[in-house]
Amino acid sequence: MKFINLKLKANSYPIIFSDDYGDLLCCLKKYLNSKSVFLISDSNVSKIYLEKIINILKKEKFKTENFVFKAGEKSKNIKTLVEIYNYALKVGLDRKTVVIALGGGVVGDVAGFFASTFMRGLNFVQIPTTLLAMVDSSIGGKTGVNLETGKNIVGTFYQPKFVYINSNFLKTLEINHIKNGMGEVLKYAIAFSHKFFKELNLLPDKSIFTLSDFDNIIYKCCKFKAKIVEEDEKEKKGVRELLNLGHTFGHALETITKYKKYLHGEAVVLGILFVVKLANKIKFCDDDTKSNIEKIILNLGFNTKINLKTDAKNILSLMKKDKKSVSKTIRFVLPQKIGKAVSHIEVDDKIILEVIKDFIR
Amino acid sequence: MKFINLKLKANSYPIIFSDDYGDLLCCLKKYLNSKSVFLISDSNVSKIYLEKIINILKKEKFKTENFVFKAGEKSKNIKTLVEIYNYALKVGLDRKTVVIALGGGVVGDVAGFFASTFMRGLNFVQIPTTLLAMVDSSIGGKTGVNLETGKNIVGTFYQPKFVYINSNFLKTLEINHIKNGMGEVLKYAIAFSHKFFKELNLLPDKSIFTLSDFDNIIYKCCKFKAKIVEEDEKEKKGVRELLNLGHTFGHALETITKYKKYLHGEAVVLGILFVVKLANKIKFCDDDTKSNIEKIILNLGFNTKINLKTDAKNILSLMKKDKKSVSKTIRFVLPQKIGKAVSHIEVDDKIILEVIKDFIR
Repeated sequence: MKFINLKLKANSYPIIFSDDYGDLLCCLKKYLNSKSVFLISDSNVSKIYLEKIINILKKEKFKTENFVFKAGEKSKNIKTLVEIYNYALKVGLDRKTVVIALGGGVVGDVAGFFASTFMRGLNFVQIPTTLLAMVDSSIGGKTGVNLETGKNIVGTFYQPKFVYINSNFLKTLEINHIKNGMGEVLKYAIAFSHKFFKELNLLPDKSIFTLSDFDNIIYKCCKFKAKIVEEDEKEKKGVRELLNLGHTFGHALETITKYKKYLHGEAVVLGILFVVKLANKIKFCDDDTKSNIEKIILNLGFNTKINLKTDAKNILSLMKKDKKSVSKTIRFVLPQKIGKAVSHIEVDDKIILEVIKDFIR
Repeated sequence: MKFINLKLKANSYPIIFSDDYGDLLCCLKKYLNSKSVFLISDSNVSKIYLEKIINILKKEKFKTENFVFKAGEKSKNIKTLVEIYNYALKVGLDRKTVVIALGGGVVGDVAGFFASTFMRGLNFVQIPTTLLAMVDSSIGGKTGVNLETGKNIVGTFYQPKFVYINSNFLKTLEINHIKNGMGEVLKYAIAFSHKFFKELNLLPDKSIFTLSDFDNIIYKCCKFKAKIVEEDEKEKKGVRELLNLGHTFGHALETITKYKKYLHGEAVVLGILFVVKLANKIKFCDDDTKSNIEKIILNLGFNTKINLKTDAKNILSLMKKDKKSVSKTIRFVLPQKIGKAVSHIEVDDKIILEVIKDFIR
C-alpha cells in the first residue's frame, strides 16, 4: 500500500493505492464512523464488480444499498440525480450514510454531486475503476452534471473522505477507455513536466502496457493533481485552471456531438491539439513544441483529424460558454513549452475562428 | 446601521441592519469584486421591489439580470432550479456574477442552492424581505429545495457573502406572513431565552406592532441564530438542531397538506405544540411550561387545533423521513423548560402515535 495525503485547510484526505480490499475496509472504519453504505455505480461496472464489493462489505457487517444507472456521459444529468434522490429517500438513507462512487468519471461526478446535496451533504468515498478516474476525476472534489446546453454547468466542490485506487480494475477496462485516460495523462505531461513527457514517449505500444506501467503513471498523475488542488482547491487563482488544458475546445466538441462521438479523454486530446495550434499561431509556443506534441499524440494512437459537419462559429459560441469565460471572453490555458502551460490567456475571436476553421475542415 | 459579524472558520460574514440602500451598495463594493449581478425573486416581491432595486444598482453601473418565479413553497423544487440554470446560461452569466436573493425563505433557499451549484459556486447575497427570512432563513447558509416526498431533502450549506436586512420591507408584508415569521421568533424564545419569551408576552397585539418592535425582535433573533451557527455550522454537534424545534412535526404537516394549508411558520407553531405535548407526556417538561407555551401561542393569534383527514401512522412515517432521523429513529428536539431545549431525544413510537392521535382528532 502506498498513499498520498492531499492537504487542504478544512478537508485533508488520503489517496490510497492498494490492490488489497482489506485496505478499503480499514479506511472505511478508520475515516468514517458508520456501517451504512450507499454504492452508486453504472451498468458496465456493476456487472463485474458491484456484487463483489457488496460481499466484501457485508462480511464486515456493513449495511448496503445501491443504485445503478446506465453507463455513459448521457446519464450525467439532473434526471439521473432525481432518480437517485428519490431512491435514497425510499430506502431510508440518513445523514450518517456513506456514499461510495464505484466507477469511472461519470459515476464519480454524479455520486459526488448526490453526496454533496442529499440532506445537505453525506460523507463520500471514491473508488475509481477507470484510468481516467484514477488519474484525474476522482481526486480534487469536483462534482457535477451536464445541462443539455453545457457540460458540468451544475456542480459543487465537495471533497471525498478518501480515494481508494486499485489498478486491478484496469484488467477489465476496454482499450478505448485506456485511451480515454491516456488523454488526461498526456495533459499532465504537457502542462507540468517535460520529464514525464519523455517517459510517456518511451512507453511501449499501449496495447502491451503492464499493470506496473500503469501503477507508475497513476501515482505520478495523482501527485501532480494533489499538488495543484492543494494550491487552488476552488479554482480561484488560475492554478487549478491549468488542469483544463485542452478542455475548452474539448467540451465544445463533446457538447456539439451530444457526447456520442468522443470519449472525454479523446475530446481533450483534440482540445490539446487545438490549443497547441492556437498557441503556435500567436507565437506563444515554438514550432518544435507543436510538432513534439503532435507526434506523441499520434504515437499514443489518437486520431488527430476532426470531421465535423458544423460551423466554426458554432464551436466558438459554445466555447464562450465555458466556465472559465469572464464577460463572454474565453480565457485559454495555452502550452508555452512542454512542461509549462499558462492560464488566463485571451485571444482575438478572429484568430480563434481561423484556427477552428483550419482544424475542422 | 447596525451589524452582527457571523464568525466562521472559512466564511465569516456580516449581517447588516439598515434602512439605507446606500449601505447595500457599499457592501456590494466592499465584499464583492464584480459589477455583474443576478437577482432572483418571486412574483409577489418582484412586483413591488425588483425594479426599485435594479434602478439603485444600475445607477452605480451594475449590470443586472433577473429571474422571477411564482411565489410560494410549491415553486421550491428542482424544476424551478433547472429553469434558472438554463436562463443563467442563456444570458451568459459567468463565475464572477453575484447572485442576490430578493425575497422570503423560499427565494433565499432556491437562490442559495442555485448559487452554490451553478458553475460550482457563485458569490451570494441575501436580501430578506419577509419577517421569517429576516429572523431565520437568510442567516446560516442553509439552502435547499423540496422533493415531492420530503422537504429540503436536496440542499447545501453555502454561506452568503453578507445579509442585508431592511425592515422597511415589512411595511408591505401581509399579516399572515408576519404571523409566519412570528412562528420562528417564538421558537428562539422557547429554545434559548426565558427573558425573550417574557418580552414577547408583553408585546401589544400583533396588528399594532411598530417597525421598531420588529427591529428589536429581528436583531435579537439574528443574535441567537448567529451564535448557534458559529458553534455548529454544519449541524454536526446537535447544537444547530435546536433550531429545528417544532420542525419535525411541522415538516410532516406541510408535506401531507402539499404546502397548501399552512405557511411554514404556522406549521412550526403546531410542531412546537406537538413537542410540548410530547415532552409533557414523558415528563420531560412540567405542566406549567406546557400551559405557558400554549398560552403565548394563543395570544399571538395562532390556531392550535389541527383538523386533518389523515392517519396518525401516516404522519409518523413522514416524520421518520426527517433529516435528523438516524436508522429510521426520529431524534426530537424537546423543550425542557422555557428557554431550554434539548436535541437528540428518542421517544417510543407508541407514545409518539398517541400524542399525534390526540392532537389531530
